[in-house]
Amino acid sequence: MTIKEQAAVMKLNSTKMAVTTLEERNGALTAIREGLLAHKDEIFKANKEDMERAQEEGIAAPILKRLKFQEEKLNEVVTGISDLIGLPDPLGKEQLKRELDTDLLLVRKSCPIGVIGVIFEARPDAMVQIASLCIKSGNCAILKGGSEAMKTNKTIFKVIYQAALDAGMPENCMFQIEARSDITELLECHESVDLLIPRGSNSFVQYIMEHTKIAVMGHADGICHVYADRTLDLDKAIRVILDSKTQYTAVCNAAETLLVHKDIAGELLPKLNEALCAKGVEVRGTKEVQEIVTCEAASEEDFSTEYLDLIISVKTVENIWEAIEHINKYGSHHTDCIITEDGEAAQTFMKCVDSAGVYHNCSTRFADGYRYGFGAEVGISTGKLHARGPVGLEGLCTYKYELFGNGNIVADYAEGRKQFHFKDI
Amino acid sequence: MTIKEQAAVMKLNSTKMAVTTLEERNGALTAIREGLLAHKDEIFKANKEDMERAQEEGIAAPILKRLKFQEEKLNEVVTGISDLIGLPDPLGKEQLKRELDTDLLLVRKSCPIGVIGVIFEARPDAMVQIASLCIKSGNCAILKGGSEAMKTNKTIFKVIYQAALDAGMPENCMFQIEARSDITELLECHESVDLLIPRGSNSFVQYIMEHTKIAVMGHADGICHVYADRTLDLDKAIRVILDSKTQYTAVCNAAETLLVHKDIAGELLPKLNEALCAKGVEVRGTKEVQEIVTCEAASEEDFSTEYLDLIISVKTVENIWEAIEHINKYGSHHTDCIITEDGEAAQTFMKCVDSAGVYHNCSTRFADGYRYGFGAEVGISTGKLHARGPVGLEGLCTYKYELFGNGNIVADYAEGRKQFHFKDI
Repeated sequence: MTIKEQAAVMKLNSTKMAVTTLEERNGALTAIREGLLAHKDEIFKANKEDMERAQEEGIAAPILKRLKFQEEKLNEVVTGISDLIGLPDPLGKEQLKRELDTDLLLVRKSCPIGVIGVIFEARPDAMVQIASLCIKSGNCAILKGGSEAMKTNKTIFKVIYQAALDAGMPENCMFQIEARSDITELLECHESVDLLIPRGSNSFVQYIMEHTKIAVMGHADGICHVYADRTLDLDKAIRVILDSKTQYTAVCNAAETLLVHKDIAGELLPKLNEALCAKGVEVRGTKEVQEIVTCEAASEEDFSTEYLDLIISVKTVENIWEAIEHINKYGSHHTDCIITEDGEAAQTFMKCVDSAGVYHNCSTRFADGYRYGFGAEVGISTGKLHARGPVGLEGLCTYKYELFGNGNIVADYAEGRKQFHFKDI
Repeated sequence: MTIKEQAAVMKLNSTKMAVTTLEERNGALTAIREGLLAHKDEIFKANKEDMERAQEEGIAAPILKRLKFQEEKLNEVVTGISDLIGLPDPLGKEQLKRELDTDLLLVRKSCPIGVIGVIFEARPDAMVQIASLCIKSGNCAILKGGSEAMKTNKTIFKVIYQAALDAGMPENCMFQIEARSDITELLECHESVDLLIPRGSNSFVQYIMEHTKIAVMGHADGICHVYADRTLDLDKAIRVILDSKTQYTAVCNAAETLLVHKDIAGELLPKLNEALCAKGVEVRGTKEVQEIVTCEAASEEDFSTEYLDLIISVKTVENIWEAIEHINKYGSHHTDCIITEDGEAAQTFMKCVDSAGVYHNCSTRFADGYRYGFGAEVGISTGKLHARGPVGLEGLCTYKYELFGNGNIVADYAEGRKQFHFKDI
């Protein structure tokens, strides 16, 4: 079968997934957890082969680190599945219950999206997380992992899918695609696939968006800002800026730009510069910044760059409005933070900065589904529609309007014989 | 200024719209209502000119009817604005409030989407409704109405915008585009426009989707079904089918296809056929249907056709599963209804039919923002992401995550010095 045909079969069968009960879906998750533990030697062996090939091919160290899937990572995903089992059912939630008239009841209820395609990087733990999230939310999943993890993914997928089937999940509730060329075919499946979630570089996500009619929930760059306001606590500021920049640089929620209110720059920048240098961070400042501390010059381009590295661009601003305008113009609407002891300034910042996460006095690195208590995430959306920010179970659901009547017709209302009374219950 | 430049200015100013209070936004709506009443002669005069030109150009009667904006329509929109003023604030709603740790509070709060472009048909009342919904939800709006209503729209827009400014709404909170060629320019404004809502024919909506990088919330066709199940009340069935098909045929929530369980077909179809004929409806049936009643033959194509006319395609099915499969395959995921006295069958239908509206024993014509008590709607979405079904104020909002800390850093959690406790409050 071609991928298009497989996706069409999956689409038809997605109703079977939609009617599974919470007990059945949790049962499948339990089976998957046990299956992974029972087949761990097989999985570790496949992963060692992937690792060896990657090393031979000279793959960079950070990618190798993500690729590795041994005892420690297995324990993490197993704990993750247990957490997910403990979360409440995302399906069938009544979001609205309204009597339109005495015998006409409207209920808005959450339900699965249907068929979701996820394209993710070479991280075998992502395969487990995404498949588990899709099962818990009653969705069918088409999974494409990074090719460096091919053997590991294949082994993990076999274990997961078999465990799911044994636990009573419907046939075709998930399938894996492996070749990069398969992605092209997947992009054409707009009649069967309801949502694509591409993870990876910004240019990759853009490419996907431009080459498919399927709805895409992508995360573009993370150009996150910290704005140090006029009234701040110096120690708190330095602490938060350091963590935002250096706790883990290769991720979208790391800070790339620091904006500093001109009135506090003279006090903050020398101390901060010292702390950043001690952590090996290269500072690139505007002219005004260079007048206060010795650093590289920042160009206009720096402010649109996601370094993902130990580099930070720094600029002074006249006031909070200039900071907000800068962030909305140069930022990627991901996560931005204000450091201030002035509650009113914080409110203004949080209302006016047009980002998925707006933070007050805490590190941008908190932007993450796990840290928000979502159990896990399939990605972080920088779009504004549907899900915004970390996307967990709720982002994998949609809703439908159920209307319960007893032979009710619109003509009665249009011709004045009856009237709606709209009573939320 | 080009449209791109205008949109960019609007985008920058959209933060001013985001910080308006409910009182300010309701004040603007009140001013708009009064402005429309005060300038009604001017508006009616412009509308008469549009009507005369349309008549000279031989525009079809249903379009002329929609184009007309005189005393009656004015009263309707004025009542609509009053209703909208009475609705609660869609902004700043706390959708989630969770303590991640003792001094780290996460709040998910509703906020405006930002800049919304709406392209709508030649109905001057739509201009008022859409502009009012955008103001109430704190969004900036780019409005393009059907060219047949050009003079009316221009007059109405002038009144609305001036009233909004006088009441303290920010400059550039809305602008109008008039030429069809302006749409092409609007489609390129992905850096400034957050959402496009095209209303109109299916092919028009498709065209928009394929020619822009902006997120589109479109409503495609409405191929709505009624499924007459084995156990039903005959009178109720005929009543609902007649209303679904004939109460207003030229709209997306009118029924186009009737599916009938084979066991009830012999009893239902003769009576129903008589009732449909009396209303002037042409029945197109499959072979099995033609064996029971005299009617035209239905082709495969009929089941994918939105007639928007007094025609209905009819097919018998073996069981509820065949009905569900047919609807999910041929339907447009808009609104579909089951007629049955069997509660379990209704539950199955509602869970398995993949549509925005799934109805039990009531007319498909109820699928409408006004009838759901949303005040008004900007459209009916047949997509599954973000808003599904009738889109009112809530569909014009997104949310952001606000995180309040006190110098909190991720390193403390990553290195085990602190632990999240996730407490919803």
